Amino acid sequence: MPNSEQDFLSLIDRHFPNRGGRVLLGRGDDCAVLDPGGPDGRLCISTDLFVEDVHFRRSYFSPADIGHKALAAAASDLAGMGAEPVGFALSLSLPGDVTDSFLDQMLAGMAALSERLGLPLVGGDLSQGPVLALDVVVLGRPGPSGRLLKRGQGKPGDALLLAGDIGLARAGLLEMECHGKCDPGSWPGARAAHLRPEPRLAYGLALAQIETPDGPAVSGLMDVSDGLARDLPRFLGLCGADLSFGINDLHPEVAAYFTGRGKDPVEEAILGGEDYALLACADPERLPMVLAVLPQVRVIGRVSATPGVRLNSGQVLRQGFDHFAKPGTEL
Amino acid sequence: MPNSEQDFLSLIDRHFPNRGGRVLLGRGDDCAVLDPGGPDGRLCISTDLFVEDVHFRRSYFSPADIGHKALAAAASDLAGMGAEPVGFALSLSLPGDVTDSFLDQMLAGMAALSERLGLPLVGGDLSQGPVLALDVVVLGRPGPSGRLLKRGQGKPGDALLLAGDIGLARAGLLEMECHGKCDPGSWPGARAAHLRPEPRLAYGLALAQIETPDGPAVSGLMDVSDGLARDLPRFLGLCGADLSFGINDLHPEVAAYFTGRGKDPVEEAILGGEDYALLACADPERLPMVLAVLPQVRVIGRVSATPGVRLNSGQVLRQGFDHFAKPGTEL
Repeated sequence: MPNSEQDFLSLIDRHFPNRGGRVLLGRGDDCAVLDPGGPDGRLCISTDLFVEDVHFRRSYFSPADIGHKALAAAASDLAGMGAEPVGFALSLSLPGDVTDSFLDQMLAGMAALSERLGLPLVGGDLSQGPVLALDVVVLGRPGPSGRLLKRGQGKPGDALLLAGDIGLARAGLLEMECHGKCDPGSWPGARAAHLRPEPRLAYGLALAQIETPDGPAVSGLMDVSDGLARDLPRFLGLCGADLSFGINDLHPEVAAYFTGRGKDPVEEAILGGEDYALLACADPERLPMVLAVLPQVRVIGRVSATPGVRLNSGQVLRQGFDHFAKPGTEL
Repeated sequence: MPNSEQDFLSLIDRHFPNRGGRVLLGRGDDCAVLDPGGPDGRLCISTDLFVEDVHFRRSYFSPADIGHKALAAAASDLAGMGAEPVGFALSLSLPGDVTDSFLDQMLAGMAALSERLGLPLVGGDLSQGPVLALDVVVLGRPGPSGRLLKRGQGKPGDALLLAGDIGLARAGLLEMECHGKCDPGSWPGARAAHLRPEPRLAYGLALAQIETPDGPAVSGLMDVSDGLARDLPRFLGLCGADLSFGINDLHPEVAAYFTGRGKDPVEEAILGGEDYALLACADPERLPMVLAVLPQVRVIGRVSATPGVRLNSGQVLRQGFDHFAKPGTEL
């Protein structure tokens, strides 16, 4: 814990620049003042709470991992709208056993991602508290196309698209809950996916900008943070879906990790959680343009007029467990 | 704790409308989307953490008091810029012993203030956690004049103005820390000031709009949340001040409470804390216009070129204790 207010403000200022860009008045007054810019005055806002022993453990997260992931998880919601970053606010609850060095490394991990994403710190608050908790509020704006992409926009026949791996962070979580942080040489992709997820802001923004002669290529977008099994029904609204998704569509570590434990890797990947992948839908005639611009995006199925989600023409997908089996509920 | 995600979202929706006004896309997608409006694209943002046993106690705060004060404290920072409300986000950390009824009352207390202030809920997050904690992020915009009022703007000779009582919430805190919630008939004003502070948004906004033939009447503004002794030096920047402030300037309960305990009520009022009063400065020639528009605002002294703060031509004011003697540090 910093010894004085000035120590803490100096620490924050050392890690996060307090001027420039869209920040008209930086930290230190009653409010910060921003000029969000963008093609119109619209603003996106989303919040993510990141609480010790609910969302992360100090036993296998490094301080820098904690700082990184708290911001990454919040920023992923901007990616899920196809928004450009404007800024973020951080509220920190610090228990007495957090050392200056720990705090310094945690802020450094957050600051590195903040700088890389172009998402400046524009305010926050600090309090004592019984556990380490970080609340991150992100602000974004539409990109040049002026489009922000919502859920529930898919029409029957639309292609379902996925950017990013699913199930990898789940394997990392299970591995580290079981074996802790030691032997980091095993399942490095899975561990990294859980500890250092990468918010797909560039993908989200690109998906929202793609134009075809008939109009926007992508009609709906969302970030997959609670697992495809729970997020896909939210994305589809009243529609259903037919997925074509096999073991070859998985990251090799996901296939190996779950197969080696006698589990179905496709089912585990679809249960997933904290994937921070992006799920999108596109009219099939406009799909080639999307794949030309973003060849890494994969088609994982089609929107269907028949409710429910079917996997590989057979098995009906479990609708996923209730959100409260997991730690939180984002509004 | 709500039994399911749907229960929680229904509870939130019952208390907080999810459409209308400046909310273009309400809660339920990756982000909410706002149109802040205002005379230009500028946006104010501020954050306030409100943590059990650091900022409040469940022993003498009712659930509705907790909801009210968490939002009031954050909204006061908008008042301190002279900003108009746009919206707020709420992150809730709920321990297992919070009942549905407690949560319902807490949200009702917050919703009543939200509606009264015209400050809609535009997002948030929920997590389990070891203590009850509320993190509130408020967004605002400039009023019709386009002015947002900062600290550090006072020039020597400027009048120092105060809107609201100081020391009243301090008396309430001391009384309830000592005697709890019973006998609420004694010191009702002090108790209410601590439990149910009123953010002075209308005053702040009005102060930022007043025009004289020579220009804006008010040049600087801040909310007094850490006590005048600590906030006044922040407001003055490199300047000093001469205060004229006596027992007759105090709320009668402040005078009686501290006098009865052998303390100097003026000094205790200036130490204060959680007053949520507004401190402003105005050129003396433009002062009559301020007092004509807002007669409740009191002149409490003058800005001086001589550093330091002097009280009633004598005693040099203690500069206040360090912020970390108090629970938090707002950026």
